[in-house]
Amino acid sequence: MKILLVGASGTLGRAIAQTLSHHEVLAASRNSAQFPVDITDDASVSALLRKTGKVDAIVSAAGVLHFGPLPEMSPAQFSIGLNDKLLGQVRLALLGQHALNDGGSITLTTGIVADEPIRAGANASAVNRALEGFVQGAAFELQRGLRINAVSPSVLTESWADYGPFFPGFEPVTAARAALAYQRSVEGVQSGRVYRVW
Amino acid sequence: MKILLVGASGTLGRAIAQTLSHHEVLAASRNSAQFPVDITDDASVSALLRKTGKVDAIVSAAGVLHFGPLPEMSPAQFSIGLNDKLLGQVRLALLGQHALNDGGSITLTTGIVADEPIRAGANASAVNRALEGFVQGAAFELQRGLRINAVSPSVLTESWADYGPFFPGFEPVTAARAALAYQRSVEGVQSGRVYRVW
Repeated sequence: MKILLVGASGTLGRAIAQTLSHHEVLAASRNSAQFPVDITDDASVSALLRKTGKVDAIVSAAGVLHFGPLPEMSPAQFSIGLNDKLLGQVRLALLGQHALNDGGSITLTTGIVADEPIRAGANASAVNRALEGFVQGAAFELQRGLRINAVSPSVLTESWADYGPFFPGFEPVTAARAALAYQRSVEGVQSGRVYRVW
Repeated sequence: MKILLVGASGTLGRAIAQTLSHHEVLAASRNSAQFPVDITDDASVSALLRKTGKVDAIVSAAGVLHFGPLPEMSPAQFSIGLNDKLLGQVRLALLGQHALNDGGSITLTTGIVADEPIRAGANASAVNRALEGFVQGAAFELQRGLRINAVSPSVLTESWADYGPFFPGFEPVTAARAALAYQRSVEGVQSGRVYRVW
């Protein structure tokens, strides 16, 4: 398969590329030389899709959230996650559906805070839930045998030093283990699924 | 109690006002003479909250979604629901938390499409799920005994002529029945709940 992987330079993205290395993986990211993309911008995503041509799968491991205490949170801060991790990934799906070969798939990234609220995590809970709702709704409307799923990892072992304090008592998962769920989505048959990895 | 009701002029809003009429209800809406508000605008919401002064409850029955087929949906169309029903209601909560008396409550409106995807409803599924994630996350971080809940009604009987074709086989509920859930939220003790009315 020819797979467009967005967010390929991150910890999770690199593990996904490794797990899918028996395919042709086009590694896109904000600072990529070959496949640069800004998921918050229609024109940038469209340019990327023109460059890749038709693909068999689009995998996203990209997106920024806002973390901060609710009593101090502003609407502008809350909209960071809406415009980036949520609308950015939805943009990849909406524009990307037309760049997929018949039977192709879209795999987005949500996260454990959708199910397990944490301190300072109201934006993450909202954005991740939204992505799961989008995937479950969109799955029924995709045409030409296209599929869509989401992967919801726990905190990554590799990111524990940075994020661990926000997740007291949570079990981290390795990026390699999380990456398996992307393989299940890309090579499997299911649609409208949220693969929880924790 | 002194209750700020946003979206008071709609079908659901009028039923909520009736159900809560043993309280002092301040009826806000886009075209209200006394309490006009545009929930997509920080300044407008802040002006409303200055006008009401401290309240004991904020109830929102406001918010616009985008309905349309996924294969034709643009990111700009998807963002309609993000900016209005989602961020608009989150804005009421984020700014409104500081306008509530100790022990006060916030009640937002989600909807059945969060749980039951429909044709043309991907934006509604995403936005409603996001609101439920926000409520469940935010409940743990509110201070001073503040509470937050959401009400998820099915299609309203009163709106069946307009929306029924999108909801084949769904059971509508009367606005009066849905309004009871808002009373449970406002006068009850729970927080972080989604009251499903269907």
